[in-house]
Amino acid sequence: MSLKANPATADSGSAATREQLLARATEVFAEHGFRNATIRDICQRAEANVAAVNYHFGGKEELYGEVLRRNFRAALQRFPADGGVRPDAPPTQRLRGFIRSFVQRIFVTGPDSCHGRMLAREMVDPTPALDTLVATEIRSLAASLERIVRDLLGPKVGDWQVRVCLASVVSQIVFYQHCRPVISRLFPDLQFDSDDLEALVDHITTFSLAGIRATARRSP
Amino acid sequence: MSLKANPATADSGSAATREQLLARATEVFAEHGFRNATIRDICQRAEANVAAVNYHFGGKEELYGEVLRRNFRAALQRFPADGGVRPDAPPTQRLRGFIRSFVQRIFVTGPDSCHGRMLAREMVDPTPALDTLVATEIRSLAASLERIVRDLLGPKVGDWQVRVCLASVVSQIVFYQHCRPVISRLFPDLQFDSDDLEALVDHITTFSLAGIRATARRSP
Repeated sequence: MSLKANPATADSGSAATREQLLARATEVFAEHGFRNATIRDICQRAEANVAAVNYHFGGKEELYGEVLRRNFRAALQRFPADGGVRPDAPPTQRLRGFIRSFVQRIFVTGPDSCHGRMLAREMVDPTPALDTLVATEIRSLAASLERIVRDLLGPKVGDWQVRVCLASVVSQIVFYQHCRPVISRLFPDLQFDSDDLEALVDHITTFSLAGIRATARRSP
Repeated sequence: MSLKANPATADSGSAATREQLLARATEVFAEHGFRNATIRDICQRAEANVAAVNYHFGGKEELYGEVLRRNFRAALQRFPADGGVRPDAPPTQRLRGFIRSFVQRIFVTGPDSCHGRMLAREMVDPTPALDTLVATEIRSLAASLERIVRDLLGPKVGDWQVRVCLASVVSQIVFYQHCRPVISRLFPDLQFDSDDLEALVDHITTFSLAGIRATARRSP
Protein backbone atom coordinates (compact mmCIF):
# COMPACT_ATOMS: atom_id res chain seq x y z
CA MET A 1 0.00 0.00 0.00
CA SER A 2 1.45 3.31 -1.03
CA LEU A 3 1.62 6.10 1.55
CA LYS A 4 -0.55 8.11 -0.81
CA ALA A 5 -3.28 5.47 -1.12
CA ASN A 6 -6.80 6.74 -0.49
CA PRO A 7 -7.50 5.43 3.01
CA ALA A 8 -11.18 5.07 2.15
CA THR A 9 -10.27 2.20 -0.13
CA ALA A 10 -7.85 0.52 2.32
CA ASP A 11 -7.82 -0.74 5.93
CA SER A 12 -7.15 2.81 7.14
CA GLY A 13 -10.73 3.73 6.26
CA SER A 14 -12.26 1.21 8.68
CA ALA A 15 -14.08 1.93 11.93
CA ALA A 16 -11.39 -0.12 13.73
CA THR A 17 -8.72 2.26 12.42
CA ARG A 18 -10.77 5.23 13.59
CA GLU A 19 -10.89 3.74 17.11
CA GLN A 20 -7.15 2.97 17.01
CA LEU A 21 -6.41 6.54 15.94
CA LEU A 22 -8.49 7.96 18.81
CA ALA A 23 -6.84 5.66 21.38
CA ARG A 24 -3.27 6.34 20.22
CA ALA A 25 -3.94 10.06 19.72
CA THR A 26 -5.13 10.23 23.34
CA GLU A 27 -1.74 8.90 24.52
CA VAL A 28 0.26 11.17 22.22
CA PHE A 29 -1.71 14.35 23.03
CA ALA A 30 -1.60 13.64 26.79
CA GLU A 31 2.15 13.05 26.59
CA HIS A 32 3.24 15.84 24.25
CA GLY A 33 0.36 18.32 24.11
CA PHE A 34 -1.47 19.45 21.00
CA ARG A 35 1.33 21.53 19.48
CA ASN A 36 4.17 19.03 19.93
CA ALA A 37 2.16 15.96 18.93
CA THR A 38 2.65 14.80 15.34
CA ILE A 39 0.22 13.06 13.01
CA ARG A 40 3.11 10.83 11.94
CA ASP A 41 3.62 9.59 15.53
CA ILE A 42 -0.10 8.98 16.05
CA CYS A 43 -0.47 7.10 12.76
CA GLN A 44 2.64 4.99 13.39
CA ARG A 45 1.30 3.91 16.80
CA ALA A 46 -2.12 3.23 15.29
CA GLU A 47 -0.46 1.37 12.38
CA ALA A 48 -2.47 3.55 10.01
CA ASN A 49 -1.77 5.38 6.80
CA VAL A 50 -0.81 9.04 7.49
CA ALA A 51 -3.80 10.12 5.38
CA ALA A 52 -6.19 8.35 7.77
CA VAL A 53 -6.38 11.33 10.15
CA ASN A 54 -7.59 13.63 7.38
CA TYR A 55 -9.98 11.00 6.12
CA HIS A 56 -11.59 10.26 9.50
CA PHE A 57 -11.40 13.63 11.21
CA GLY A 58 -10.46 16.31 8.70
CA GLY A 59 -7.16 17.24 10.36
CA LYS A 60 -5.04 17.31 13.50
CA GLU A 61 -7.09 20.06 15.19
CA GLU A 62 -10.37 18.19 14.67
CA LEU A 63 -8.82 14.91 15.86
CA TYR A 64 -7.59 16.67 18.99
CA GLY A 65 -11.00 18.23 19.66
CA GLU A 66 -12.65 14.82 19.30
CA VAL A 67 -10.07 13.19 21.64
CA LEU A 68 -10.50 15.89 24.29
CA ARG A 69 -14.34 15.75 24.20
CA ARG A 70 -14.48 11.96 24.08
CA ASN A 71 -12.15 11.48 27.06
CA PHE A 72 -13.92 14.16 29.08
CA ARG A 73 -17.28 12.43 28.41
CA ALA A 74 -15.87 8.98 29.17
CA ALA A 75 -14.66 10.17 32.59
CA LEU A 76 -18.09 11.68 33.32
CA GLN A 77 -19.79 8.48 32.21
CA ARG A 78 -17.64 6.42 34.57
CA PHE A 79 -18.03 8.89 37.46
CA PRO A 80 -21.24 10.89 36.85
CA ALA A 81 -21.21 14.48 38.09
CA ASP A 82 -23.90 13.95 40.76
CA GLY A 83 -21.92 11.12 42.38
CA GLY A 84 -25.07 9.00 42.38
CA VAL A 85 -26.96 11.45 44.65
CA ARG A 86 -30.56 12.21 43.61
CA PRO A 87 -31.36 15.78 42.45
CA ASP A 88 -34.00 16.13 45.22
CA ALA A 89 -31.51 15.24 48.01
CA PRO A 90 -30.47 18.00 50.45
CA PRO A 91 -27.74 20.28 49.02
CA THR A 92 -25.14 19.06 51.58
CA GLN A 93 -25.49 15.54 50.17
CA ARG A 94 -25.46 16.80 46.60
CA LEU A 95 -22.28 18.75 47.36
CA ARG A 96 -20.62 15.62 48.74
CA GLY A 97 -21.69 13.63 45.65
CA PHE A 98 -20.34 16.29 43.30
CA ILE A 99 -17.02 16.44 45.19
CA ARG A 100 -16.67 12.64 45.43
CA SER A 101 -17.13 12.01 41.70
CA PHE A 102 -14.83 14.93 40.78
CA VAL A 103 -12.12 13.59 43.11
CA GLN A 104 -12.53 10.14 41.50
CA ARG A 105 -12.12 11.62 38.02
CA ILE A 106 -8.98 13.47 39.13
CA PHE A 107 -7.32 10.50 40.86
CA VAL A 108 -8.24 7.86 38.30
CA THR A 109 -5.21 6.03 36.87
CA GLY A 110 -4.63 4.35 33.51
CA PRO A 111 -6.03 5.55 30.17
CA ASP A 112 -8.90 7.38 31.94
CA SER A 113 -6.36 9.80 33.44
CA CYS A 114 -5.50 11.25 30.02
CA HIS A 115 -8.39 13.74 30.00
CA GLY A 116 -6.99 15.37 33.15
CA ARG A 117 -3.52 15.69 31.69
CA MET A 118 -4.88 17.09 28.43
CA LEU A 119 -6.99 19.62 30.32
CA ALA A 120 -3.96 20.64 32.40
CA ARG A 121 -2.12 21.36 29.15
CA GLU A 122 -5.08 23.41 27.92
CA MET A 123 -4.68 25.61 31.02
CA VAL A 124 -1.15 26.54 29.91
CA ASP A 125 -1.60 26.62 26.12
CA PRO A 126 -5.31 26.89 25.33
CA THR A 127 -6.41 25.70 21.88
CA PRO A 128 -9.71 26.36 20.05
CA ALA A 129 -10.84 22.94 21.36
CA LEU A 130 -11.12 24.46 24.85
CA ASP A 131 -13.83 26.90 23.69
CA THR A 132 -15.85 23.97 22.38
CA LEU A 133 -15.28 21.87 25.53
CA VAL A 134 -16.36 24.74 27.79
CA ALA A 135 -19.48 25.31 25.68
CA THR A 136 -20.50 21.66 25.34
CA GLU A 137 -19.35 20.06 28.61
CA ILE A 138 -17.76 22.27 31.29
CA ARG A 139 -20.53 24.90 31.36
CA SER A 140 -23.22 22.38 32.30
CA LEU A 141 -20.93 20.81 34.92
CA ALA A 142 -20.32 24.26 36.43
CA ALA A 143 -24.07 24.99 36.32
CA SER A 144 -24.85 21.86 38.32
CA LEU A 145 -22.39 22.90 41.06
CA GLU A 146 -23.76 26.45 40.90
CA ARG A 147 -27.26 25.15 41.73
CA ILE A 148 -25.90 23.29 44.78
CA VAL A 149 -23.92 26.32 45.97
CA ARG A 150 -26.94 28.65 45.47
CA ASP A 151 -29.12 26.26 47.47
CA LEU A 152 -26.56 26.32 50.30
CA LEU A 153 -25.99 30.10 50.20
CA GLY A 154 -29.69 31.00 50.07
CA PRO A 155 -31.55 33.34 47.68
CA LYS A 156 -30.18 36.65 49.01
CA VAL A 157 -26.53 36.06 48.13
CA GLY A 158 -25.25 37.71 44.94
CA ASP A 159 -23.75 36.16 41.81
CA TRP A 160 -20.20 37.23 42.72
CA GLN A 161 -20.32 35.30 46.01
CA VAL A 162 -21.81 32.26 44.26
CA ARG A 163 -19.00 32.24 41.71
CA VAL A 164 -16.12 32.65 44.14
CA CYS A 165 -17.62 29.90 46.33
CA LEU A 166 -17.88 27.69 43.25
CA ALA A 167 -14.20 28.47 42.55
CA SER A 168 -13.25 27.68 46.15
CA VAL A 169 -14.87 24.23 45.93
CA VAL A 170 -13.53 23.26 42.49
CA SER A 171 -10.04 24.60 43.22
CA GLN A 172 -9.57 22.26 46.18
CA ILE A 173 -10.18 19.27 43.88
CA VAL A 174 -8.32 20.24 40.69
CA PHE A 175 -5.32 21.31 42.82
CA TYR A 176 -4.37 17.61 43.07
CA GLN A 177 -4.24 17.50 39.28
CA HIS A 178 -2.67 20.84 38.47
CA CYS A 179 -0.13 21.05 41.32
CA ARG A 180 0.78 17.37 41.61
CA PRO A 181 4.49 17.97 40.75
CA VAL A 182 4.86 20.37 43.71
CA ILE A 183 2.72 18.29 46.12
CA SER A 184 4.73 15.12 45.39
CA ARG A 185 8.02 16.96 45.95
CA LEU A 186 6.90 18.74 49.14
CA PHE A 187 5.13 15.77 50.73
CA PRO A 188 6.43 12.54 49.13
CA ASP A 189 4.63 10.46 51.78
CA LEU A 190 1.24 12.06 51.07
CA GLN A 191 -0.23 9.19 49.02
CA PHE A 192 -3.88 8.75 48.19
CA ASP A 193 -5.12 5.17 48.02
CA SER A 194 -8.86 4.50 48.01
CA ASP A 195 -9.28 4.92 51.82
CA ASP A 196 -7.40 8.21 51.74
CA LEU A 197 -9.52 9.36 48.81
CA GLU A 198 -12.65 8.92 50.93
CA ALA A 199 -10.93 10.93 53.70
CA LEU A 200 -10.02 13.60 51.15
CA VAL A 201 -13.65 13.76 49.95
CA ASP A 202 -14.68 14.16 53.63
CA HIS A 203 -12.11 16.90 54.14
CA ILE A 204 -13.03 18.93 51.04
CA THR A 205 -16.76 18.56 51.81
CA THR A 206 -16.36 19.65 55.45
CA PHE A 207 -14.05 22.53 54.54
CA SER A 208 -16.33 23.69 51.72
CA LEU A 209 -19.61 23.48 53.65
CA ALA A 210 -18.11 25.53 56.48
CA GLY A 211 -16.69 28.01 53.97
CA ILE A 212 -19.99 28.40 52.10
CA ARG A 213 -21.94 28.87 55.35
CA ALA A 214 -19.45 31.49 56.57
CA THR A 215 -19.82 33.30 53.22
CA ALA A 216 -23.63 33.26 53.59
CA ARG A 217 -23.39 34.70 57.13
CA ARG A 218 -21.15 37.53 55.93
CA SER A 219 -23.32 38.51 52.97
CA PRO A 220 -25.41 41.66 53.41
CA MET B 1 32.35 40.09 15.46
CA SER B 2 32.30 36.47 14.35
CA LEU B 3 29.64 34.16 15.76
CA LYS B 4 32.46 32.06 17.16
CA ALA B 5 34.15 34.94 18.99
CA ASN B 6 34.88 34.27 22.66
CA PRO B 7 32.14 36.29 24.34
CA ALA B 8 34.47 37.03 27.25
CA THR B 9 36.44 39.28 24.98
CA ALA B 10 33.43 40.96 23.39
CA ASP B 11 30.32 42.86 24.49
CA SER B 12 28.50 39.55 25.06
CA GLY B 13 30.67 38.95 28.12
CA SER B 14 29.44 42.05 29.94
CA ALA B 15 27.17 42.24 32.97
CA ALA B 16 24.70 44.23 30.84
CA THR B 17 24.47 41.34 28.40
CA ARG B 18 23.89 38.92 31.29
CA GLU B 19 20.96 41.07 32.44
CA GLN B 20 19.59 41.33 28.91
CA LEU B 21 19.79 37.56 28.53
CA LEU B 22 17.90 37.02 31.80
CA ALA B 23 15.20 39.53 30.87
CA ARG B 24 14.66 38.20 27.34
CA ALA B 25 14.93 34.55 28.48
CA THR B 26 12.15 35.25 30.99
CA GLU B 27 9.84 36.33 28.15
CA VAL B 28 10.79 33.43 25.89
CA PHE B 29 10.48 30.76 28.59
CA ALA B 30 7.14 32.16 29.83
CA GLU B 31 5.83 32.22 26.26
CA HIS B 32 7.13 28.90 24.91
CA GLY B 33 8.14 26.82 27.94
CA PHE B 34 11.57 25.34 28.60
CA ARG B 35 11.50 22.67 25.89
CA ASN B 36 10.23 24.82 23.03
CA ALA B 37 12.35 27.88 23.84
CA THR B 38 15.52 28.24 21.78
CA ILE B 39 18.85 29.78 22.71
CA ARG B 40 18.88 31.37 19.27
CA ASP B 41 15.60 33.20 19.94
CA ILE B 42 16.76 34.39 23.38
CA CYS B 43 20.13 35.62 22.05
CA GLN B 44 18.52 37.38 19.11
CA ARG B 45 16.15 39.28 21.41
CA ALA B 46 19.02 40.08 23.78
CA GLU B 47 21.18 41.12 20.79
CA ALA B 48 23.87 38.81 22.09
CA ASN B 49 26.24 36.28 20.59
CA VAL B 50 24.76 32.74 20.70
CA ALA B 51 27.77 31.66 22.79
CA ALA B 52 26.84 34.18 25.52
CA VAL B 53 24.39 31.78 27.21
CA ASN B 54 27.07 29.14 27.69
CA TYR B 55 29.56 31.76 28.82
CA HIS B 56 27.29 33.34 31.45
CA PHE B 57 25.22 30.38 32.60
CA GLY B 58 26.78 27.16 31.31
CA GLY B 59 23.79 26.18 29.16
CA LYS B 60 20.06 26.43 28.49
CA GLU B 61 19.06 24.35 31.53
CA GLU B 62 21.11 26.48 33.91
CA LEU B 63 19.82 29.70 32.34
CA TYR B 64 16.27 28.44 32.78
CA GLY B 65 16.89 27.49 36.44
CA GLU B 66 18.31 30.95 37.10
CA VAL B 67 15.35 32.66 35.37
CA LEU B 68 12.79 30.60 37.31
CA ARG B 69 14.48 31.22 40.70
CA ARG B 70 15.13 34.89 40.03
CA ASN B 71 11.54 35.65 39.00
CA PHE B 72 10.11 33.67 41.90
CA ARG B 73 12.32 35.64 44.32
CA ALA B 74 11.50 38.96 42.68
CA ALA B 75 7.77 38.32 43.15
CA LEU B 76 8.36 37.43 46.83
CA GLN B 77 10.46 40.54 47.28
CA ARG B 78 7.71 42.73 45.85
CA PHE B 79 4.95 40.96 47.83
CA PRO B 80 6.59 39.30 50.87
CA ALA B 81 5.00 36.03 52.04
CA ASP B 82 3.78 37.43 55.38
CA GLY B 83 1.87 40.25 53.67
CA GLY B 84 3.46 42.71 56.09
CA VAL B 85 1.87 41.04 59.14
CA ARG B 86 4.20 40.54 62.15
CA PRO B 87 5.10 36.95 63.12
CA ASP B 88 3.67 37.49 66.63
CA ALA B 89 0.26 38.60 65.30
CA PRO B 90 -2.74 36.28 65.85
CA PRO B 91 -2.88 33.42 63.30
CA THR B 92 -6.10 34.77 61.73
CA GLN B 93 -4.23 37.97 60.79
CA ARG B 94 -1.19 36.03 59.61
CA LEU B 95 -3.45 33.87 57.43
CA ARG B 96 -4.98 36.98 55.86
CA GLY B 97 -1.51 38.44 55.23
CA PHE B 98 -0.29 35.22 53.62
CA ILE B 99 -3.39 35.01 51.39
CA ARG B 100 -3.25 38.70 50.42
CA SER B 101 0.37 38.65 49.26
CA PHE B 102 -0.13 35.33 47.42
CA VAL B 103 -3.19 36.74 45.62
CA GLN B 104 -1.13 39.83 44.70
CA ARG B 105 1.66 37.66 43.26
CA ILE B 106 -0.89 35.66 41.21
CA PHE B 107 -2.77 38.69 39.81
CA VAL B 108 0.26 40.89 39.14
CA THR B 109 0.53 41.99 35.51
CA GLY B 110 3.52 42.89 33.33
CA PRO B 111 6.95 41.24 33.54
CA ASP B 112 6.33 40.16 37.16
CA SER B 113 3.61 37.80 35.94
CA CYS B 114 6.14 35.60 34.13
CA HIS B 115 7.05 33.55 37.21
CA GLY B 116 3.43 32.40 37.50
CA ARG B 117 3.25 31.38 33.86
CA MET B 118 6.58 29.54 34.09
CA LEU B 119 5.42 27.71 37.24
CA ALA B 120 2.16 26.76 35.51
CA ARG B 121 4.23 25.18 32.73
CA GLU B 122 6.31 23.31 35.32
CA MET B 123 3.09 21.73 36.60
CA VAL B 124 2.48 20.17 33.17
CA ASP B 125 6.06 19.40 32.12
CA PRO B 126 8.31 19.46 35.21
CA THR B 127 12.02 20.07 34.62
CA PRO B 128 14.94 19.50 37.02
CA ALA B 129 14.67 23.22 37.88
CA LEU B 130 11.45 22.48 39.78
CA ASP B 131 13.29 20.21 42.24
CA THR B 132 15.69 23.06 42.99
CA LEU B 133 12.90 25.64 43.27
CA VAL B 134 10.93 23.45 45.69
CA ALA B 135 14.06 22.86 47.80
CA THR B 136 15.25 26.47 47.87
CA GLU B 137 12.04 28.53 47.77
CA ILE B 138 8.69 26.71 47.83
CA ARG B 139 9.44 24.51 50.86
CA SER B 140 10.03 27.48 53.16
CA LEU B 141 6.92 29.24 51.80
CA ALA B 142 4.86 26.11 52.53
CA ALA B 143 6.42 25.85 56.01
CA SER B 144 5.37 29.40 56.87
CA LEU B 145 1.74 28.61 55.91
CA GLU B 146 1.99 25.30 57.78
CA ARG B 147 2.85 27.18 60.99
CA ILE B 148 -0.21 29.41 60.58
CA VAL B 149 -2.50 26.44 59.86
CA ARG B 150 -1.10 24.48 62.85
CA ASP B 151 -1.67 27.47 65.12
CA LEU B 152 -5.29 27.64 63.92
CA LEU B 153 -5.92 23.88 64.12
CA GLY B 154 -4.38 23.45 67.57
CA PRO B 155 -1.76 20.95 68.78
CA LYS B 156 -3.93 17.81 68.71
CA VAL B 157 -4.60 17.75 64.97
CA GLY B 158 -2.48 15.34 62.91
CA ASP B 159 -0.06 16.03 60.03
CA TRP B 160 -2.50 14.72 57.40
CA GLN B 161 -5.17 17.26 58.40
CA VAL B 162 -2.58 20.06 58.47
CA ARG B 163 -1.46 19.23 54.94
CA VAL B 164 -4.88 18.94 53.38
CA CYS B 165 -5.90 22.24 55.04
CA LEU B 166 -2.74 23.82 53.62
CA ALA B 167 -3.72 22.44 50.21
CA SER B 168 -7.27 23.80 50.60
CA VAL B 169 -5.94 27.31 51.28
CA VAL B 170 -3.28 27.40 48.55
CA SER B 171 -5.56 25.80 45.95
CA GLN B 172 -8.13 28.60 46.21
CA ILE B 173 -5.40 31.12 45.29
CA VAL B 174 -3.43 29.31 42.57
CA PHE B 175 -6.74 28.31 40.90
CA TYR B 176 -6.89 31.83 39.40
CA GLN B 177 -3.51 31.18 37.79
CA HIS B 178 -3.86 27.56 36.72
CA CYS B 179 -7.49 27.61 35.59
CA ARG B 180 -7.68 31.12 34.16
CA PRO B 181 -8.53 29.91 30.60
CA VAL B 182 -11.64 28.11 31.89
CA ILE B 183 -12.66 30.88 34.32
CA SER B 184 -12.43 33.56 31.62
CA ARG B 185 -14.55 31.45 29.23
CA LEU B 186 -17.18 30.50 31.83
CA PHE B 187 -17.48 33.93 33.46
CA PRO B 188 -16.16 36.58 31.04
CA ASP B 189 -17.56 39.35 33.27
CA LEU B 190 -15.70 38.09 36.38
CA GLN B 191 -12.90 40.66 36.33
CA PHE B 192 -10.56 41.39 39.19
CA ASP B 193 -9.44 44.99 39.55
CA SER B 194 -7.80 46.13 42.77
CA ASP B 195 -11.10 46.53 44.70
CA ASP B 196 -12.23 43.06 43.64
CA LEU B 197 -8.85 41.65 44.65
CA GLU B 198 -9.42 42.89 48.19
CA ALA B 199 -12.89 41.27 48.12
CA LEU B 200 -11.32 38.06 46.84
CA VAL B 201 -8.74 38.13 49.67
CA ASP B 202 -11.67 38.58 52.09
CA HIS B 203 -13.56 35.70 50.54
CA ILE B 204 -10.64 33.23 50.57
CA THR B 205 -9.73 34.22 54.15
CA THR B 206 -13.32 33.83 55.42
CA PHE B 207 -13.83 30.56 53.55
CA SER B 208 -10.48 29.16 54.74
CA LEU B 209 -10.84 30.18 58.39
CA ALA B 210 -14.27 28.55 58.55
CA GLY B 211 -12.92 25.46 56.79
CA ILE B 212 -9.92 25.15 59.11
CA ARG B 213 -12.10 25.57 62.22
CA ALA B 214 -14.57 22.94 60.97
CA THR B 215 -11.62 20.57 60.36
CA ALA B 216 -10.36 21.18 63.92
CA ARG B 217 -13.85 20.44 65.35
CA ARG B 218 -14.07 17.15 63.44
CA SER B 219 -10.62 15.90 64.44
CA PRO B 220 -10.57 13.19 67.11
